[in-house]
Amino acid sequence: MAAQPFAGVLVPVLTPFTATGEPDAGRFIAFCRWLLDQGADGLAIFGTTSEANSMSAGERMALLDRLVAAGVPTAKLMPGTGACSITEAVTLINHAVGHGCGGVLMLPPFYYKGMTDGGVYDFIAGVIDRVGSPALRMYLYHIPPQTMIPFTLELVGRLIKAYPDTVVGLKDSSGDWSNTAALLKAYPGFGIFPGSEVFLLDGLRHGGVGCITASGNVNVPGIRKVYENWQTPQADALQAEITLARKTIQAYPMVPALKRIVAHFHADPDWATVRPPMERLSDAQSAPLLADLAKIGFTLGERHREAAE
Amino acid sequence: MAAQPFAGVLVPVLTPFTATGEPDAGRFIAFCRWLLDQGADGLAIFGTTSEANSMSAGERMALLDRLVAAGVPTAKLMPGTGACSITEAVTLINHAVGHGCGGVLMLPPFYYKGMTDGGVYDFIAGVIDRVGSPALRMYLYHIPPQTMIPFTLELVGRLIKAYPDTVVGLKDSSGDWSNTAALLKAYPGFGIFPGSEVFLLDGLRHGGVGCITASGNVNVPGIRKVYENWQTPQADALQAEITLARKTIQAYPMVPALKRIVAHFHADPDWATVRPPMERLSDAQSAPLLADLAKIGFTLGERHREAAE
Repeated sequence: MAAQPFAGVLVPVLTPFTATGEPDAGRFIAFCRWLLDQGADGLAIFGTTSEANSMSAGERMALLDRLVAAGVPTAKLMPGTGACSITEAVTLINHAVGHGCGGVLMLPPFYYKGMTDGGVYDFIAGVIDRVGSPALRMYLYHIPPQTMIPFTLELVGRLIKAYPDTVVGLKDSSGDWSNTAALLKAYPGFGIFPGSEVFLLDGLRHGGVGCITASGNVNVPGIRKVYENWQTPQADALQAEITLARKTIQAYPMVPALKRIVAHFHADPDWATVRPPMERLSDAQSAPLLADLAKIGFTLGERHREAAE
Repeated sequence: MAAQPFAGVLVPVLTPFTATGEPDAGRFIAFCRWLLDQGADGLAIFGTTSEANSMSAGERMALLDRLVAAGVPTAKLMPGTGACSITEAVTLINHAVGHGCGGVLMLPPFYYKGMTDGGVYDFIAGVIDRVGSPALRMYLYHIPPQTMIPFTLELVGRLIKAYPDTVVGLKDSSGDWSNTAALLKAYPGFGIFPGSEVFLLDGLRHGGVGCITASGNVNVPGIRKVYENWQTPQADALQAEITLARKTIQAYPMVPALKRIVAHFHADPDWATVRPPMERLSDAQSAPLLADLAKIGFTLGERHREAAE
């Protein structure tokens, strides 16, 4: 199995849009830099939290071009390259590999339902074969609540066996710890990231390599503390703290809530903009969200200032 | 409400791929012509049956370019222009409208789950507003088994009210007659096509304008007989005949089965090729499918020859 290009706390970066709904490269670059300054170990741009599928392939590639041109280190980037067609996925991957991205995060062909493991295998294999690059490091993106197409335990094993130097890990956004545990047990050395920091400590204790988590957009320092101290007596208390923050946020629609939090703490109201079909958090939802966060002492603003000092 | 650009039997055209998996424009053009010769009233290219989402936007537009260049009448074309992003949908629609296509078939942004009617409304409205063309005629594509995002009765009403000259109809692939019936009752004059010929006669009796059906790829003449004779005493017997043919085919995976039937009756084995994640019908499935069809006297080959004579 190939060496792991990523470990630690990875953030599926929120995508800022202008008030008229265009991707805002300037604010995107600034936010990516800020996340790395906060301690993020990698940036999983163009994930679900990034509203990646609300952008055309061209818009995604243009944003990546801008990020690279701005000097953000490409080894830290794991762009989402999922698409329902082999051809579009290949275009996105070739672009990412051409930029030297550390890896890519790969959805199954999510339009389809009721496909067999064999059909999904043929899709992923078709993508890897067409790309044909020894530089490609692919992370499978298991998120059945969105795709309804799972990367089953057996399918993952088949892909690792066929492409040991390419298929190097998996993001498990099933929300089902027993699935993550089964993967960790079955494939030691495979780079498994739970899709939520709620499972970070459990994952690390069973061989996981970190987490890729939406709430990383607003809580890298807290989540990194668990990653750095997981073998210390403080680990469970630190985990309880980030679990509480996560649960407070996810009581609201996740992406609009995260964007609202960024807008608030970065004092930049346009950050709350989402692309349809998502809807901006209403004022009636924003007020209790921010109050709930204040109640648990969540202070991104202060952390931001501390980091900047 | 705008005049209806389409009525009758529309076919979501199968997309032929070469043995190496490339879209085959030559065989696509020939097949579209054959379907029109068979009596198809319109071609809903790039639907679910067409494996449209297994092609990139560029591949779809290139195929449409070739079809138009070959002289297939654009007024008879209703390309699928669904995408998860407003920007990609706008690109596809501008291309179709630029070619003078009679209409377009529009999926909701299918990656997303649990969106509100308001969010889906904003998506469709955003697409229509950005296209900004009085020539656009849009059919909503309601197919919750694939998308998990419905065009609810209320949402359809809201879109008709806001865009009476643009949102002119709907394909109902819910497979739920009570939903089709509710739409027909609520919105008289709106162009409602059941997504299966199983509901053709019921639809016509309640104000429907035809059907858009996968099995049209292999049975336009039979389905058209119901459309032409729905007010005659033979209607129920004719309907029973096409329902039996449909149910025989859909006992197998639909798209691979249809492609296998075309390969058989057109004596062109490459027609059986699908793109992953779909899988070609196995020999173990093909033999009973063709035997079942023979048993009910299904003879596309003879019809084809008759039509050619």
